[in-house]
Amino acid sequence: MRVFSYDQLYRYTKSIFVAIGCNESAAALATEVLLSADLRGIDSHGVARLSGYVRLWQASRINANPNIRVIHETPSTAVVDGDAGLGLVVAPHAMQIAIDKAKQVGTGWVSVQNSNHFGIAGYHAMMALNEDMIGIAMTNASALVAPTFSIEKMLGTNPIAVAIPAGNQPPFVADFATTTAANGKLEMLQRKNEEAPIGWVQDESGNASNDANILKKNGSLLPLGSDREHGSHKGYALGSIVDIFSAVLSGASYGPWAPPFPAYITMPENMPGKGLGHFFGAMRIDAFRPAEDFKTHMDHWIERFSNAKPSAGNERVLIPGDPERAMELIRRKDGIPLLESVVTDLKNTGSILEIHEPLG
Amino acid sequence: MRVFSYDQLYRYTKSIFVAIGCNESAAALATEVLLSADLRGIDSHGVARLSGYVRLWQASRINANPNIRVIHETPSTAVVDGDAGLGLVVAPHAMQIAIDKAKQVGTGWVSVQNSNHFGIAGYHAMMALNEDMIGIAMTNASALVAPTFSIEKMLGTNPIAVAIPAGNQPPFVADFATTTAANGKLEMLQRKNEEAPIGWVQDESGNASNDANILKKNGSLLPLGSDREHGSHKGYALGSIVDIFSAVLSGASYGPWAPPFPAYITMPENMPGKGLGHFFGAMRIDAFRPAEDFKTHMDHWIERFSNAKPSAGNERVLIPGDPERAMELIRRKDGIPLLESVVTDLKNTGSILEIHEPLG
Repeated sequence: MRVFSYDQLYRYTKSIFVAIGCNESAAALATEVLLSADLRGIDSHGVARLSGYVRLWQASRINANPNIRVIHETPSTAVVDGDAGLGLVVAPHAMQIAIDKAKQVGTGWVSVQNSNHFGIAGYHAMMALNEDMIGIAMTNASALVAPTFSIEKMLGTNPIAVAIPAGNQPPFVADFATTTAANGKLEMLQRKNEEAPIGWVQDESGNASNDANILKKNGSLLPLGSDREHGSHKGYALGSIVDIFSAVLSGASYGPWAPPFPAYITMPENMPGKGLGHFFGAMRIDAFRPAEDFKTHMDHWIERFSNAKPSAGNERVLIPGDPERAMELIRRKDGIPLLESVVTDLKNTGSILEIHEPLG
Repeated sequence: MRVFSYDQLYRYTKSIFVAIGCNESAAALATEVLLSADLRGIDSHGVARLSGYVRLWQASRINANPNIRVIHETPSTAVVDGDAGLGLVVAPHAMQIAIDKAKQVGTGWVSVQNSNHFGIAGYHAMMALNEDMIGIAMTNASALVAPTFSIEKMLGTNPIAVAIPAGNQPPFVADFATTTAANGKLEMLQRKNEEAPIGWVQDESGNASNDANILKKNGSLLPLGSDREHGSHKGYALGSIVDIFSAVLSGASYGPWAPPFPAYITMPENMPGKGLGHFFGAMRIDAFRPAEDFKTHMDHWIERFSNAKPSAGNERVLIPGDPERAMELIRRKDGIPLLESVVTDLKNTGSILEIHEPLG
């Protein structure tokens, strides 16, 4: 592990995005979105993925200068064509449209086609908070997950994020994959050569497995709930809803045709739509009730849940967003620790692009 | 078990709603909503609950002639005060407002306060299907569920339903509690004196339990995911989002203050809002893309997922809504089977209200 300051990583990452052809403001935005994952402790979605985005660009699957545009709209909805841009740039653009529509008619809902991996869903949902709005963000992703009763990888980990403002309390920010465990968690076990808990993955025949490398052996991730008896059909339904809102509603590629993130994987044949899909929502609080009344009750909600009687061995009940916010405070102060393999990967990416900005 | 035709149960149930003071159209609507659960095989939410609604009315907690009204609105949103009416009547009224708003500005979103148990969420979400809209319905409910790391019952089983139209294929209809298992499933095990699978409930100390009667012994239901390692924090987040959208956004009573369904349970003290809360959404398909294009892709989605490679022992992958639709076909034809205890309960309820309509 080596520790870097946010500013070091920011400058280095931004220079990479500039090197692939992003303009200054797009590079700054992509960097901010990407690093928000490192700050919040979602290490699988931060700079550890930077080389992956660059490889997509090398494979001509990312357009560094996209013409992001609305191709259909009503007062409360829009469909955005991301023009194969970085999801890190397309997503905040689309979320801003949702927010602008909410200002006009109370809520805004934007489905996006022709995009790429957008970083953490939570970043985009949280854009609504400063506007006294509830923010919602979701995306489809490379197929790694088998539906209940299946052994075929049909869905991505398809995350959902919901950010809800409070008053004196910090906001409620849920951001979770619709699988039992996110793929990033599995990757961490692979690096540490550890086993996965039963219920996270299955083998190629659909049997329970604790092999963290099972996805490379025709195994699959399991929907939230793990098995039918424990509600995996609900996780499968949630992942499906994310897929349909993000990709069928927008005209992106859905289900097993979602474009894979790793550039070395061949693109699926007969793709039914364009690129990856996202879905964003913004609801103005005062489209329902005065924002101050809502915030007073949200503070009350948060205080009551924080003080729910904890079970043995647990200090207190957490509110969604608590661990990530605590991590951000620490990392802004003490820096962001990166695995040596991630540092090497970043340096290699920089040298390919002839980056002279030192990583430190 | 005794089997009744839909029409028999319809006439009997409607006469009960008329007897408690509902007008003809409200009684017909409440009956249709209630019986949709029996038809779809969700027996815990059908006529088995009728006596429960009547007891709430006897306890003066249900107003048979509510003045259901919009108390706040924007072009795409509304808050509805259900005036303590039957949720079975308030909910379709509110969902219709969401649909009407979607006709005007693309989407409609309605949060409801001062309501009661609304039957199955799926009925309300499915109202959108004939309008070429996606329908969403959710509700908070009596607190039975402990958040992750807690032993205190803070949330209801807080279901989410999402109905999505297709073309030649039947619609996609997901309708699920945000717990590992719905309370109705637990009640069925209680009746049969069977044990619950580990992961459904915990005891008063937060230990895993297979006692189907544990809720009567200070135990609690577990959020979808069962435990932290298997993602219960995601189920807890989902249940919380339903609670906040339904009750904090509308001004209803939230969390542990949600009014309990069983009339014999004392109402919580210091309730922060009015009654139970619901949340409804309607999104016009053609607010995103031409409905025919969307339906063609939904048919393709459904066909592809139905044909995903099944695991050993399973015939095929199910699309959300498949089992309930199959059950409805059978029960419309062959009738609705009721447990003797449910029949007795219905007859007792009828005799209290001096119903002369024969049950059969």
